[in-house]
Amino acid sequence: MSVKINENYLLLESNYLFAEISRRVEKYQEENPDAGIIKMGIGDVTKPLPKAVVEAFKDAVLEMGNSETFMGYGPEQGYSFLIDEIIANDYKPRGIELSPDEVFISDAAKCDTANIQEIFGLDNTIAVTDPVYPVYVDSNVMAGRTGPMQDNGRYENVIYMPCTAENNFIPSLPETPVNIIYLCLPNNPTGTALKREELAKWVEYAKENSSIILFDAAYEAYVTEDDIPQSIYEIEGAKEVAMEFRSFSKNAGFTGTRCAFVVVPKELTAVDSDGKKHDLNSLWNRRQTTKFNGVSYPVQRAAQAVYTEEAQKEIKENIDYYLKNAAIIKGSMEDMGLKVYGGVNPPYIWVKTPENMDSWAFFDLLLSEANVVGTPGVGFGPSGEGYFRLTAFNTFENTNEAMERISKLSF
Amino acid sequence: MSVKINENYLLLESNYLFAEISRRVEKYQEENPDAGIIKMGIGDVTKPLPKAVVEAFKDAVLEMGNSETFMGYGPEQGYSFLIDEIIANDYKPRGIELSPDEVFISDAAKCDTANIQEIFGLDNTIAVTDPVYPVYVDSNVMAGRTGPMQDNGRYENVIYMPCTAENNFIPSLPETPVNIIYLCLPNNPTGTALKREELAKWVEYAKENSSIILFDAAYEAYVTEDDIPQSIYEIEGAKEVAMEFRSFSKNAGFTGTRCAFVVVPKELTAVDSDGKKHDLNSLWNRRQTTKFNGVSYPVQRAAQAVYTEEAQKEIKENIDYYLKNAAIIKGSMEDMGLKVYGGVNPPYIWVKTPENMDSWAFFDLLLSEANVVGTPGVGFGPSGEGYFRLTAFNTFENTNEAMERISKLSF
Repeated sequence: MSVKINENYLLLESNYLFAEISRRVEKYQEENPDAGIIKMGIGDVTKPLPKAVVEAFKDAVLEMGNSETFMGYGPEQGYSFLIDEIIANDYKPRGIELSPDEVFISDAAKCDTANIQEIFGLDNTIAVTDPVYPVYVDSNVMAGRTGPMQDNGRYENVIYMPCTAENNFIPSLPETPVNIIYLCLPNNPTGTALKREELAKWVEYAKENSSIILFDAAYEAYVTEDDIPQSIYEIEGAKEVAMEFRSFSKNAGFTGTRCAFVVVPKELTAVDSDGKKHDLNSLWNRRQTTKFNGVSYPVQRAAQAVYTEEAQKEIKENIDYYLKNAAIIKGSMEDMGLKVYGGVNPPYIWVKTPENMDSWAFFDLLLSEANVVGTPGVGFGPSGEGYFRLTAFNTFENTNEAMERISKLSF
Repeated sequence: MSVKINENYLLLESNYLFAEISRRVEKYQEENPDAGIIKMGIGDVTKPLPKAVVEAFKDAVLEMGNSETFMGYGPEQGYSFLIDEIIANDYKPRGIELSPDEVFISDAAKCDTANIQEIFGLDNTIAVTDPVYPVYVDSNVMAGRTGPMQDNGRYENVIYMPCTAENNFIPSLPETPVNIIYLCLPNNPTGTALKREELAKWVEYAKENSSIILFDAAYEAYVTEDDIPQSIYEIEGAKEVAMEFRSFSKNAGFTGTRCAFVVVPKELTAVDSDGKKHDLNSLWNRRQTTKFNGVSYPVQRAAQAVYTEEAQKEIKENIDYYLKNAAIIKGSMEDMGLKVYGGVNPPYIWVKTPENMDSWAFFDLLLSEANVVGTPGVGFGPSGEGYFRLTAFNTFENTNEAMERISKLSF
């Protein structure tokens, strides 16, 4: 009568992708203590928080030290001072109307995209692009929705939508009806963005098939080209079929500060086994009030300040800085004769490995020969095999140095 | 082929207890805008953060504004600067040895106690005290471990351990073997604490039955009497059978700042269906690295400063302050001829309602006649019916005022 584990965990790769990368890097660093490793693996920002954000953050911390202004438990859904700014700045100017209780503040888009599957039944079919951010798949594995991994590197009950050079990294609509579709656009890891008319096809598909799209827009701030929606709600009717996940990590540098949000429109419904409709906004609210305690008050004040004119100016400069890095990486890699994708709208460069080298072999090569860390494409799914991701979230100096080191290698 | 909801959500009470209280209070306040309502419902602190904590918090915020000191993603498990302080101060002086990777920093004991069930199979039996903190039960309902609620107010597959005046609010050991046991000590909501020899019986039971104890010690700082363990690991052998949940909320006033931790000793194991043992520390680590992104860096620096001598002095004063409030509530209620429990070690006062009034009727009476908000005992479980919880987490002035108002009522 011993306690039983959740056996779905045994279906996972033994390590979370980025934990495995850390492990290999640490091992190498231990064996080569003098190596100056440049990390272009995890998409982590390097620019400090904007001044206006630091100021608001600090002021809120000081409020916590005074009994007149001290804040205890806040609403699990987040403070309206932040929700109102989000709606007024991220949505209203694009003609998108949201009510405050459709926005839920959280500490991470990672948490939100991992937790959202809890409100759905285990018998829904899910579709993901391949390659894909591992959290979408792993959270479903843990919940018991995927079945075991097969020899082809795919989980049995997951529908994979391959994105490779052959289709220009644009996923095709699933051929069979699918319940839940994860889309990350602009895309991590391939760096692809979809034009309005391409994205509209997905909304149309979801309407026709009563599907729900989980739209991860964590990289929306990096959209530089025209005609690429930053929110899925720019597509007519998307509120009936899509949730949208956003974060302050990649635009405002909140990777160490922690704040994000999800939009769950009230139009969104799903059914119980009697076919009765239930609105997902209420279900998510029940989930959050029961299992979450809200985001730190000073952090929410810091996030609010992201929307000040002063902070927006700094953010724009930082984004330009990272995109300049992206251009450097793209240019250098192309000069080396490699096939390179992405790096225009989103800050990820997706490289075809030379000589059909496998992703982890290329990882080990760059680590040992150039002391540069990237992310093996296969870590994002079987169609990522033979690709490699580099992030532009680094300093200009490190980016240049890394490219110089890599360019000395002969493939 | 519509998307299906997780139907386990339909087995929940429609609102999370504290959300239902808020709803009733808001409605009353709307109808009586001039009523000066005193809230003694949610266990939320009122004293500001200690000065040393504010100082460290602020300094860390300033670090985030400088590219030399900026911090991006941290370890999902938390920074060692905080983990080391926890081990050195909360455990080592009690003779408890822990290694740093046995401590996981999080944003809430609520999240941890709600999420921990994910690593266990759905076929484990669970036992809870009755009354109990609703999160333990609700998180299991959502996961599909409890079955439906029966007419007696109990979920079908949950073992309830009644705690009433009849057994002095000390739960009896389950009569049948149980896999997972939730214990919160000192107890929320009844205010009970267990002496060392009482707690030792639970550790012994768990060893004999291969059970695991999920020990919620969120209120350990309020232990005033001798011979009451503040950590379950003070009991010999407890590392083989117990996880411990702690928080900075109730001792250091972090309810709005958000930081907590859980200890998962490496000795803890559970089995798969082949009977093979797996260590729970690894499973929890896999859960956290996949579904969590770590606690805000400045918040962890703030939590680290909780252990400074200066902050500890302030914390001691605050705890004394709240315990003085508890004594006032206890005394006033007893003067009114009511039966009162708790209020000595933990900051909760558990009152028998007068005239066998039901819990929600007493809630509505206090709200409308005294403008005081408490928590209906039945909200914590069927054995809480006829009881009512008041918290001492308030100002001295409000506590006195509330007691004056209530004492004018005739029951």
